[in-house]
Amino acid sequence: MGIILASASPRRRELLALITEDFTIIPAKGEEKADDTLEPQLLVKKLAEQKAVEVSSEHRKDFVIGADTMVFCCGKALGKPRSEAHAREMLTLLSGKKHTVITGVAIAQNGDVVNSFFEETKVEFFTLSENEIDSYIASGEPKDKAGAYGIQGKGALLIKGIEGDYYNVMGLPIGRLYHTLRRMQII
Amino acid sequence: MGIILASASPRRRELLALITEDFTIIPAKGEEKADDTLEPQLLVKKLAEQKAVEVSSEHRKDFVIGADTMVFCCGKALGKPRSEAHAREMLTLLSGKKHTVITGVAIAQNGDVVNSFFEETKVEFFTLSENEIDSYIASGEPKDKAGAYGIQGKGALLIKGIEGDYYNVMGLPIGRLYHTLRRMQII
Repeated sequence: MGIILASASPRRRELLALITEDFTIIPAKGEEKADDTLEPQLLVKKLAEQKAVEVSSEHRKDFVIGADTMVFCCGKALGKPRSEAHAREMLTLLSGKKHTVITGVAIAQNGDVVNSFFEETKVEFFTLSENEIDSYIASGEPKDKAGAYGIQGKGALLIKGIEGDYYNVMGLPIGRLYHTLRRMQII
Repeated sequence: MGIILASASPRRRELLALITEDFTIIPAKGEEKADDTLEPQLLVKKLAEQKAVEVSSEHRKDFVIGADTMVFCCGKALGKPRSEAHAREMLTLLSGKKHTVITGVAIAQNGDVVNSFFEETKVEFFTLSENEIDSYIASGEPKDKAGAYGIQGKGALLIKGIEGDYYNVMGLPIGRLYHTLRRMQII
């Protein structure tokens, strides 16, 4: 029985490696679908469960870890920016405010969810000038990230403080996952 | 007029590089001394000021950045562990509790402080088993770190959450320093 990470995210791979070097990466392929009217917390958990179950149904003996991260601000979910203009719009929205990052995590075996949870972190941005936003966009970091920023790298310069787990904002609440896997005697 | 970092810490160097590649490292040599009866916040600020002023008095035109980080738990300051047994003692103290990390930052020019501040972050540890503490000590990470842990690396597995700036716990509140240097038109 091995551990499989059902995610292609290099940040999640890097974080899981803090727990164990002994895992395989098999990203979930399916387009996850969940009822958009769900509470954000339940939505990300549901999406993580779908990813874990999809991969688990083909690798039944292993423990499969799925995760899904979303950024919520002012009542709406922020995905990955479609363009530089879209990134600018998101960063302008986040400037000077607190928003919420929620990651759902699911562990599946034999095609079934054996454990799942969500973790929530509040992130407060500095008030950013247009110039600061432009120079962050020029760094290329916003491109592939929900909410148009990453907390690691130059995104550090945008953030005044957080409440909760930092690694949750990177995409995987690794401390909580570590303690969960230990309690389940998987590691 | 250049920027000098008056610290030998590789973590501070890495963080300052997020702001600019254009700085020199000249660690302060003197043993900083400050009245131990000072409030922790004033103590770290004072120590940061001493480091910045020491280097600034020999490099008068440049802007010199000094920093000092201390970990406080249960009314006492935790330094770097002297031994594995000492690291175990500190980690056992931190287990299951919230503690405070304070970094003082000072900017000096012409041998005088031109700006200084402190930044405070609360860090909450998971309740750790002896086994978890032992395996963290075996990683070698506690050795050169105040409080016997680093929030980056495997230290991530010990931490439930924080309140405040993550980078402050690494040793430099880089977001606040960035905005301060910009306001002062140094960058």
